[in-house]
Amino acid sequence: MIKVGLLGYGTVGGGVYNILTTKKEDIERKLGEEIQIKKILVKEKDKMRKYGVDASLLTVDYKEIVEDPEIQIVVELIGGETPTLDYIKEAINRNKNVVTANKLILAKYGREIFQLAKNNNVKVYYEGSVGGGIPIIKTLKESMIANKIERIYGILNGTTNYILTQMTEKSINFEEALKEAQSLGYAENEPYFDVSGLDSAYKINILSSLAFESFIDVDSIHVEGIEKIEREDIEIAEELGYIIKLLAIGKRYEDKMLDIRVHPTFIPKSSPLSKINGVYNVVQIHGDAVGDIMIYGQGAGEMPTASAVVADIMEAAKSIKYHIENEYSTGRLNGLKLIETDEIENSFYIRLRVNDKPGVFAKIAKVFGDNEVSIASVIQKHRLNPVVPIFLQTHLIKERKLKKAIDSLNELEDVIEIKNIIRVEDFGEKF
Amino acid sequence: MIKVGLLGYGTVGGGVYNILTTKKEDIERKLGEEIQIKKILVKEKDKMRKYGVDASLLTVDYKEIVEDPEIQIVVELIGGETPTLDYIKEAINRNKNVVTANKLILAKYGREIFQLAKNNNVKVYYEGSVGGGIPIIKTLKESMIANKIERIYGILNGTTNYILTQMTEKSINFEEALKEAQSLGYAENEPYFDVSGLDSAYKINILSSLAFESFIDVDSIHVEGIEKIEREDIEIAEELGYIIKLLAIGKRYEDKMLDIRVHPTFIPKSSPLSKINGVYNVVQIHGDAVGDIMIYGQGAGEMPTASAVVADIMEAAKSIKYHIENEYSTGRLNGLKLIETDEIENSFYIRLRVNDKPGVFAKIAKVFGDNEVSIASVIQKHRLNPVVPIFLQTHLIKERKLKKAIDSLNELEDVIEIKNIIRVEDFGEKF
Repeated sequence: MIKVGLLGYGTVGGGVYNILTTKKEDIERKLGEEIQIKKILVKEKDKMRKYGVDASLLTVDYKEIVEDPEIQIVVELIGGETPTLDYIKEAINRNKNVVTANKLILAKYGREIFQLAKNNNVKVYYEGSVGGGIPIIKTLKESMIANKIERIYGILNGTTNYILTQMTEKSINFEEALKEAQSLGYAENEPYFDVSGLDSAYKINILSSLAFESFIDVDSIHVEGIEKIEREDIEIAEELGYIIKLLAIGKRYEDKMLDIRVHPTFIPKSSPLSKINGVYNVVQIHGDAVGDIMIYGQGAGEMPTASAVVADIMEAAKSIKYHIENEYSTGRLNGLKLIETDEIENSFYIRLRVNDKPGVFAKIAKVFGDNEVSIASVIQKHRLNPVVPIFLQTHLIKERKLKKAIDSLNELEDVIEIKNIIRVEDFGEKF
Repeated sequence: MIKVGLLGYGTVGGGVYNILTTKKEDIERKLGEEIQIKKILVKEKDKMRKYGVDASLLTVDYKEIVEDPEIQIVVELIGGETPTLDYIKEAINRNKNVVTANKLILAKYGREIFQLAKNNNVKVYYEGSVGGGIPIIKTLKESMIANKIERIYGILNGTTNYILTQMTEKSINFEEALKEAQSLGYAENEPYFDVSGLDSAYKINILSSLAFESFIDVDSIHVEGIEKIEREDIEIAEELGYIIKLLAIGKRYEDKMLDIRVHPTFIPKSSPLSKINGVYNVVQIHGDAVGDIMIYGQGAGEMPTASAVVADIMEAAKSIKYHIENEYSTGRLNGLKLIETDEIENSFYIRLRVNDKPGVFAKIAKVFGDNEVSIASVIQKHRLNPVVPIFLQTHLIKERKLKKAIDSLNELEDVIEIKNIIRVEDFGEKF
């Protein structure tokens, strides 16, 4: 019998308890070993709790779990950084295997935690931290083990994907879509962490550290949120054959560096990624042997995440039972560094408002030409107003050059405002 | 060091050799153990072979592999049934673990092979048998271990998906699309196995046996191919908001039976499955905890399949190294039986040609009504000819009732021909 301690009995914790109790027999049969929940850490002992959890399991003292020598697996489902990081470290230091769905801690302290686990000869499992129930960690770690991972594209945040989907399908603006998402429980009352792209940045950092065997400081990743996207951007995207998604990207760059970023992105309508709508998440990975693999599913929620956490618990139990030392993930680190965004090549969409005067466009074109930014397409509309919008798409250029061109554009008298700049990702010519 | 014998050095065999040799160091680091190819079975020893394979490894005698006590993993990549089945059984009887991508043998003799493996305390790995490099077996077996699998939908055959995609996108007919697929190497010169749906049936049978823990006789699965699909069907599908795909289905039916079948299917354009085009494969699985997961990738080819086979070899090596007994798959069998197709409820699309006379449609409507088949929509076109096509879509009805209605229709004087009957799958209201 393998004994487990749960830290936290919130949404996911309840789901894990539910699965481990209702499917007890099935789990034992598949694993060849019984899994028993010995203790559950909660904030208050006397609250009513779902799934009729056995009250004698509850404790308000985390030490009853991390210091219990019988408990071999600690499942952390409290979330957040404090005091969770300390609990996790203490559990590892006491030679317990850890299962967690905590993207914050893994993205920020992954290097420290995995090193600590290695030193203590235990393992850390984290399938639930990215993409809810989508089996992305296992796929990277095991199924694609024979591959050099070249790149990862992900739609990793359900809230922003829901908002962008609503904006696209219903032609509503960001504020309306956010309000709707909040009323449906798809967005928090305090939506900054999701809407700003930070949540996606934490998740792509976790995937990248595994895929490229390099830890990157999550604060150094370039992140843009979806707050600035307007209906006009979505409509022009549509006209040009694109959909706007909040894309998380992790790529090798010339084999020596990594290009990791999160930002709203024009992606071609022909790409399967463009069809992933609502709160669904998706990850597309390119391995040198297997080519593209795409996995999609519910990126959050009680049961999807609990499904991933229970699979991790069983993996941990198997590892304990058979004394498995090596889980394919304890190798050397490549130590690849993040490339400066200035050096990254992209095609850009630019929306600006200009005075509708003869010769204005010639001046704009000259600025781009002078800065070696070549224009792929231009759309000009509503010629009746004194101020007109112009939409441009550039060919592939380094971000540094674009910035210089934008600086010069801002100096032109008849350029009133540069409303938005959005990167375009064509995924090569594939699809 | 763990020694491996390869049976076969064709497309996939070459890919496996290539990965195991070029990534030797990386594999050893990740596994904590060296993997060495000791022997490779070929038909002729003196042929030139790709990847500069070491000639001293080649043998034309399979006994040099299956009887070598040093070889712990036999990798079968010959394909077909004879003599492969004997080789596999002999390897298992000599206590070797087997890795295979042979869908034919697993779909037809799975029960026998897994029982034999259990008796000999070895394991059989088969990720490469379904969906090439798509990690579908591992996802079902491990990532979804906390789930009761409710249903599986798959586009599991690249040849037919390529043909249907071309027919849809280019408005060409089946024969033209098949020729094109053959000229590009996406279809065999003898395309029957793919085009008839048999290949898909073998694959869905493998997935179902794992997901539902029940072995079904593959010959009893209802299979229809794509040969009868005409441009007119595709155009009407489009008009009604559907795409035609060769869908492989495996479902629980009222918890006691299984509904497994392969046939061309109308699927809604809004479904992500409808966007999987060309030679790509996709599997969508519904688990009671995780909800829907969809995995897509290259369903065949040298390197994608080799990627899956090498992951299996490493899994087998890990299992040997740590003496892992239970791989989540040796449990009891549920023994669910296949439901008769007559009992399955579907919505059907029906295309028929009738004489353009007053009252014909009323007669047709009466036949359906008399047989309790309710019509959801009707499209009638080209009213200039004496013979006109009619397209009908029924509501959900049992197949038995539809058959009776069709029999009665055939007796109507003005019904010239029932050209095609295609099932419609709306996946509930999801998407």
